[in-house]
Amino acid sequence: MSVATAPPAFEDVVDAAGRLAGHAVHTPLISASALDEACGGRVLVKAESLQRTGSFKFRGALNRISRLTSDERQRGVVAFSSGNHAQGVAAAARLVGCPAVIVMPADAPRLKIEATRARGAEVVLYDRYGQSREAIAAAIAADRQAVTVKPFDDPLVIAGQGTVGLEACAQAAEAGAVADVLLCPASGGGLIAGVSLAVERLSPETLIFAVEPKGFDDTARSLAAGERVSAPQDGRSLCDALLTTTPGEITFAINRRTLAGGLVVSDDEALAAMGFAFRHLKIVIEPGGAVALAALLSGKLKLGGRTALVVASGGNVDPDVFLKAIG
Amino acid sequence: MSVATAPPAFEDVVDAAGRLAGHAVHTPLISASALDEACGGRVLVKAESLQRTGSFKFRGALNRISRLTSDERQRGVVAFSSGNHAQGVAAAARLVGCPAVIVMPADAPRLKIEATRARGAEVVLYDRYGQSREAIAAAIAADRQAVTVKPFDDPLVIAGQGTVGLEACAQAAEAGAVADVLLCPASGGGLIAGVSLAVERLSPETLIFAVEPKGFDDTARSLAAGERVSAPQDGRSLCDALLTTTPGEITFAINRRTLAGGLVVSDDEALAAMGFAFRHLKIVIEPGGAVALAALLSGKLKLGGRTALVVASGGNVDPDVFLKAIG
Repeated sequence: MSVATAPPAFEDVVDAAGRLAGHAVHTPLISASALDEACGGRVLVKAESLQRTGSFKFRGALNRISRLTSDERQRGVVAFSSGNHAQGVAAAARLVGCPAVIVMPADAPRLKIEATRARGAEVVLYDRYGQSREAIAAAIAADRQAVTVKPFDDPLVIAGQGTVGLEACAQAAEAGAVADVLLCPASGGGLIAGVSLAVERLSPETLIFAVEPKGFDDTARSLAAGERVSAPQDGRSLCDALLTTTPGEITFAINRRTLAGGLVVSDDEALAAMGFAFRHLKIVIEPGGAVALAALLSGKLKLGGRTALVVASGGNVDPDVFLKAIG
Repeated sequence: MSVATAPPAFEDVVDAAGRLAGHAVHTPLISASALDEACGGRVLVKAESLQRTGSFKFRGALNRISRLTSDERQRGVVAFSSGNHAQGVAAAARLVGCPAVIVMPADAPRLKIEATRARGAEVVLYDRYGQSREAIAAAIAADRQAVTVKPFDDPLVIAGQGTVGLEACAQAAEAGAVADVLLCPASGGGLIAGVSLAVERLSPETLIFAVEPKGFDDTARSLAAGERVSAPQDGRSLCDALLTTTPGEITFAINRRTLAGGLVVSDDEALAAMGFAFRHLKIVIEPGGAVALAALLSGKLKLGGRTALVVASGGNVDPDVFLKAIG
């Protein structure tokens, strides 16, 4: 077996960084005086929307796929996702020359389906209302003896996402900044778990906060409860990348140790943050990618002159949603 | 006198880089497989829209202003501009603690006037149709014994903009790329003149092309004529950053030696390039900043598998124009 089973540690993030070198983009840490003024402190934005495939997902997918045995690589991988994970897996699989099947809802935005196909993946569509994507993916995995690349609850995926934190800590140090807080979007919790492994070691004084959209605040609830609990399944949000309603097992085992707490923002606050980023940072952020920035801009966390690292996790947004943010 | 009078050389660009270190952003060189496919080669985009103040103008302004004597610094600087140069001068002046007066047309976008004021500059408005901004700026300069920071035809300004080229050459080498061509927007020609000083030395095999909007192709005409000629003054363009109709004297003396030629794109082609950058690069580019990318995407220059460096020079665009690009 090539699959790691122990929960990931800092060393696994460092190892992932080595595997991603030359493949993943070392995304910039962006700042702007207007942002500092609006947030009442110094703010450094890790722009993962500039990552290959438009989100951080490529990092975890490549770290997982690069560990496949040559047999596994030949048989290929399977994943289910309607968005960023799909593109991350497709791009990583193509890079190592491994077939990829992505199970996507038939009513996913055509743009995302096309983008996934354009990256060389085979797309299997399913009916979101009548079929279980997990069952379809499991059947494909069994049929082809393919490895399933999970979106977050996998040690290698978490370690790959953690390279965002490694880079951000190094870049902040280069800029002469010591982060008092770090804010990062959370859905299943893979990104923030990986990032927190890096920050816990490299910047132990930094308080780490998960940020989620209203209605999908399972990580905030779970942190408060001290155990994994679900958000009520009746929410709706523009933040299509953050719709998971229960934290992962492996991710939460890390996050309950490393996180200071969870913050929640509304769709309107996410849109306002996207508009701010358009005007002042000149980067495109999708709603789910903007929630951490939104938490600062909307005053959910007041900096009071302190320094914040903020992860902007992705930029795959349709024009009609972007128009709402800047119009 | 603290003002350089000789035309700038490569060494002046290197000197400028030292002065800008820690102040100007080392902007990223961005790539995307979709861009490579669309252009039929390898394309690396130098994202100067991520520069402080949203455009490259901060570089030249700071290089100029950092050479003021302490007397000059106390008396302050004056500049005229309706856009990027205004913000670049305002931010650079504030950084060194020097008063700045910016002469702007009374009908300039309120957003740009406010942004210039927000950077601490005094804004003097004039009537675009009844008054000469040059005369107003000259009167202010005489009255306050202030130094005028020219938008392009100044050796220190050109050398400052050239740091874009220094960085791009180093970043391309890091990425293992040798640029066969470089495309850069041109208006007065300061940016491309500075960039070409760096490229001429560090990557002499690279052919350098100026790109201009239709109706404002004075650099292309002048290169063809072998001397400075003006574009007909009857054009209109969305590319508000590129509306100069005659090349600078100092800039053209460099550009006639260093450039291979000039390319011209339409407003629609610039808008399409902005939309492409939104979808695939996740950065915001303004119309004038997008013309070099537009030249490749519209096939004005066919790469045929070769490698291109492209300068995206700014991202200060109003929402209504951006909507046209992505809508």
